[in-house]
Amino acid sequence: MPAASTRVARQERSRATRTRLLEATVECLVERGWSGTTTTLVATRAGVSRGAQLHHYPTKAALVTAAVAHLTERRARELRTEAEALPAGPRRLDRVVDLLAAAFTGPLFVAALELWVAARTDRELRDALVPLEARVGREMHRLTVTLLGVDERRPGVREAVQATLDLLRGLGVANLLSDDTARRTALLRTWKRQLAVLLAPDDERAGVVG
Amino acid sequence: MPAASTRVARQERSRATRTRLLEATVECLVERGWSGTTTTLVATRAGVSRGAQLHHYPTKAALVTAAVAHLTERRARELRTEAEALPAGPRRLDRVVDLLAAAFTGPLFVAALELWVAARTDRELRDALVPLEARVGREMHRLTVTLLGVDERRPGVREAVQATLDLLRGLGVANLLSDDTARRTALLRTWKRQLAVLLAPDDERAGVVG
Repeated sequence: MPAASTRVARQERSRATRTRLLEATVECLVERGWSGTTTTLVATRAGVSRGAQLHHYPTKAALVTAAVAHLTERRARELRTEAEALPAGPRRLDRVVDLLAAAFTGPLFVAALELWVAARTDRELRDALVPLEARVGREMHRLTVTLLGVDERRPGVREAVQATLDLLRGLGVANLLSDDTARRTALLRTWKRQLAVLLAPDDERAGVVG
Repeated sequence: MPAASTRVARQERSRATRTRLLEATVECLVERGWSGTTTTLVATRAGVSRGAQLHHYPTKAALVTAAVAHLTERRARELRTEAEALPAGPRRLDRVVDLLAAAFTGPLFVAALELWVAARTDRELRDALVPLEARVGREMHRLTVTLLGVDERRPGVREAVQATLDLLRGLGVANLLSDDTARRTALLRTWKRQLAVLLAPDDERAGVVG
């Protein structure tokens, strides 16, 4: 086997190992929480040797931060793909809000929340997470603007998108201990109508309100 | 000393002991998080003997649940008092939202969030918290309706109050790791205007929108 393809194969294996570790990390955070997650447990779960795990992610903070970053990017790509498949027209906004609400009640949100809360009282984790939190926040905002197909330069659009994401975060927390689906669905039905008004161009707004 | 007043004095001491324990619990949760909080640490911090602590709250779950319940009730009373001091008129809604936003970014919210997240993966804590979460949710809703002085039987009012509380919960989480005050203040400025429209009686609504 020529040296170049050996190197490519090795890189490919490394990438597969890292992906398995990161996925196992999020599963572990969801099932056992921050305090129940250990790097040893993650390596076992991923079927990766302890040495390989330490090589790729030397600390628990490095492992969990990389896991949330990696899965957030993947989830954002999936959301873009799902949103591209949505029909244009007035129902599009409703479906986009539903996709986002699913993200804020899914396992990745739960894993991220475990880290956000643990980072409050864990200096090492906090230092690793604060830049990630800022980046994820910006990316979620940009993604939402794209999915909704709105122009952020128009007054009120930026605030409406922000309020939607903050509301969905609050609804995600309300869903932690008990299934809040019925209340959330009803509340979002109202919110979608409001959001349509807030996002409508000025010349359409009078029509939507009336 | 007659028996009755001895008993009253003893009850009074018991109540003071419990209050010290509950306050120390919330302080401990804020400073060290769920995993860093132990009943021994709380007893030491409260200046209460281990025996007295075990007598009043035999388990960590009992202690932390009682602490959040007790301080939520106290905070609700304080909010009522603060709200009573607010002037009537159109600025009242803004000030009520500010009071609530302060509650959702304060130590009690942080302590409660520590418990909500820990309870996801801790059966004993979960069993103790789920009924409390439901009660606190209902009480916060009722309190907000009272503070805003609105009539929930009017269409849209219930949903607007719910959305406000869910939004504030989301903003509370966004404030966990970094000071989000500037963004939150700007966002709530917009939200207060929307809320005024949503809560306005139908005959006033046209005027507020226009």
